[in-house]
Amino acid sequence: MLPVISSEKLSVPSRERSLKNTAPMNALPGFRDFYPADCARRDYILNTWAATARRYGFVAYDGPVVESLELYKKKSGGELVGQLFLVSHTSDEGAAKGALRPEMTPTLARMVAARERDYRKPMKWFCAPSFFRHERQQRGRLREFYQLNCDILGDASTGADAELVALAIDMLRAFGFTSEDFVVRLSDRSAWAAFAAARGVGEDRLGDFLSVVDKLERMKDDESAAKLAEFGVALADVRAFIAQPGAEAAGLAALQADLTARGLSDYVEIDLTIVRGLAYYTGIVFEIFDRAKKERALAGGGRYDQLLTLMSDGKVNLPALGFGMGDVTLANLIESSPRATAQMNDALASNTAAEIYVIIATETRRAEALSVVQKLRDAGRRVDYALSPAKVGKQFQAAEQLGAATAIVVGEEWPHVKVKNLVTREEHLIPAESLPA
Amino acid sequence: MLPVISSEKLSVPSRERSLKNTAPMNALPGFRDFYPADCARRDYILNTWAATARRYGFVAYDGPVVESLELYKKKSGGELVGQLFLVSHTSDEGAAKGALRPEMTPTLARMVAARERDYRKPMKWFCAPSFFRHERQQRGRLREFYQLNCDILGDASTGADAELVALAIDMLRAFGFTSEDFVVRLSDRSAWAAFAAARGVGEDRLGDFLSVVDKLERMKDDESAAKLAEFGVALADVRAFIAQPGAEAAGLAALQADLTARGLSDYVEIDLTIVRGLAYYTGIVFEIFDRAKKERALAGGGRYDQLLTLMSDGKVNLPALGFGMGDVTLANLIESSPRATAQMNDALASNTAAEIYVIIATETRRAEALSVVQKLRDAGRRVDYALSPAKVGKQFQAAEQLGAATAIVVGEEWPHVKVKNLVTREEHLIPAESLPA
Repeated sequence: MLPVISSEKLSVPSRERSLKNTAPMNALPGFRDFYPADCARRDYILNTWAATARRYGFVAYDGPVVESLELYKKKSGGELVGQLFLVSHTSDEGAAKGALRPEMTPTLARMVAARERDYRKPMKWFCAPSFFRHERQQRGRLREFYQLNCDILGDASTGADAELVALAIDMLRAFGFTSEDFVVRLSDRSAWAAFAAARGVGEDRLGDFLSVVDKLERMKDDESAAKLAEFGVALADVRAFIAQPGAEAAGLAALQADLTARGLSDYVEIDLTIVRGLAYYTGIVFEIFDRAKKERALAGGGRYDQLLTLMSDGKVNLPALGFGMGDVTLANLIESSPRATAQMNDALASNTAAEIYVIIATETRRAEALSVVQKLRDAGRRVDYALSPAKVGKQFQAAEQLGAATAIVVGEEWPHVKVKNLVTREEHLIPAESLPA
Repeated sequence: MLPVISSEKLSVPSRERSLKNTAPMNALPGFRDFYPADCARRDYILNTWAATARRYGFVAYDGPVVESLELYKKKSGGELVGQLFLVSHTSDEGAAKGALRPEMTPTLARMVAARERDYRKPMKWFCAPSFFRHERQQRGRLREFYQLNCDILGDASTGADAELVALAIDMLRAFGFTSEDFVVRLSDRSAWAAFAAARGVGEDRLGDFLSVVDKLERMKDDESAAKLAEFGVALADVRAFIAQPGAEAAGLAALQADLTARGLSDYVEIDLTIVRGLAYYTGIVFEIFDRAKKERALAGGGRYDQLLTLMSDGKVNLPALGFGMGDVTLANLIESSPRATAQMNDALASNTAAEIYVIIATETRRAEALSVVQKLRDAGRRVDYALSPAKVGKQFQAAEQLGAATAIVVGEEWPHVKVKNLVTREEHLIPAESLPA
């Protein structure tokens, strides 16, 4: 099978070239052009995500690309607000009123608050639109990127926790990755809350305490010990808890049992050093990493039982959990894996620009050829042909370049046509009226 | 079959409700929330467009949502520049540098100018992303909308004209519309150019002349006559040409012959009053209208052989043609047609939230049920189940609400399971290990 666009090269146009022109030649920094081969790879990721979410009974939703700036000022974290792209129109009086969405949760909360009662619980919703953040440019980060968001609303059970983690695992298995390629590092904020409470750390200081735990792996031990001492907690105590969380981690054990029943336990490791930066998580939290540790986190999420209440100003009160998975890191991981790359290329190769190329061997038969083209397209086949007269050899060349598996030759044999298999080179004559075969 | 989300109502939350809250409850004016049922209808349109374009051998591409403001200032028409949403970040010094894309052509021209040589001709490219225009709100107009763009680059033939018009027709046939529902009004700028030249109207005044022709149907006859007199042309002469264009419209006759060979001639009417407002068209132009004339144009396009040269500052010189089709008018037309609505509902009904619902009749068999769920999902089926313990009756209710056609009951019969057809109510016992059936 030929690739989708065999003649396409993948080099990015150089900056030098663009400087010679009065009109911009490139996309803005951090934004991407999707030429056909790039677009096919993007759509492979987006379609695989959607198909996997749907296997889990999730339904698609979406919101606007532009939301009220107020929504994010009130509802997003400080870092994200600083990264907002502002949207304005010359008719706005004074300041910009809109912002490009940097994340989905404020939109989800807004939508759910408005119509929560219309939906049976649990709600299993997903989307994978593009998001916008004014970030410094670095590997795995762009200013416009796609992110899968999967959320379960209205179920407080460990069963829901397990369903979400299983979905996250299958989101990567669907691309051909195995437990040798990635691992879900699973933790539980409520285990830490119990640990802290038992040592006299007040609820109001839990967030600060967890941010020390969050940095344990990156900070020197004496610094960590000093920070923990402020909470009256010994580093050795914390390390012992991480090594052996015991009864406080009963929820995680139940979650693991659920995943074991699904045959997915190899994909998960309990790792209490994972607490996730965001303040709003209340229960399980997880991050997914490639085993080779070449990439940033592939996905992250957890349970946030208070967040919808907070974001909706108390209008809805739904336990909830969710995760996000970005396209850039995933695309890097696919590229670094021969198996995942081969699976992607197989999928793309089966989706060539044309399945059938109709060759017009005798130009006086163009009208008949057009009727054949139309009949095949009406039957759902992807069909191409020479829009203007061309030599037969050139037409066969185009057929191969477009990845067509079959050529149908319309010429002197009319009302018969030659059907030629472009792989085996076999051909046979059939009545045109018997098409589509 | 049950609809995708049977409990969902389609009313929009009222403005009154939103005023009571401190956080915004609604999307910004002109922007849309896509709740699951809305999202399913949107995706039905987008997927039907994409599948139809691919039947014609078109390949998908895309560009960034945000482009340099310069690109549009240089390349878009005056009206569109006034409708631009500006994009900025607090780190920008002074004025906004970006704009939300209001149309695709500047991006297409930029991308093609950078890499034109990498692609064989003709290039048949399509995309259907969202666009942004700060328009006054009225029926059929939103500030964020989807628009299909299909372009053929690098072919100057009438065969390419016909291929594009045929594609536009099939874009509507794919939704179940027939020649009784819509008509392509087809014209040719070059015929008007010949008409004008024969009457001494210079090329520099052709655009102004055509804008009078464009308004003939809306303007009073004496006004039109006065305007035409400025070009030394009589209204009667113009009317006679529209009624009987003769030899100047030879291109249109060839195009019609091509469409007739495809069996699509019923969809087209020659109508020289169509010239389209935009200055850049050079050959055929067309607009598609619903026969009932309830909606704005469903689609419009034509040949623009100079535009890529102009937009790329002379870097590429490719004959080209294309059309655009918006989602809002199309959705209105689907809604007004019982046949198109029924076709859409059939498509949505076959795509329920779940195909199979696994009923956990005995909670001690949850682990076994989870293994069944996983096995079915691994086989590509859309499967749901109760995340936490629930009565069997409730589980059957959930199965029906999610549109599942089959329930698989895991209980005391294990290692056998009951497979129940939820439509016929038939059930039979099978070994669980024989799943997926």
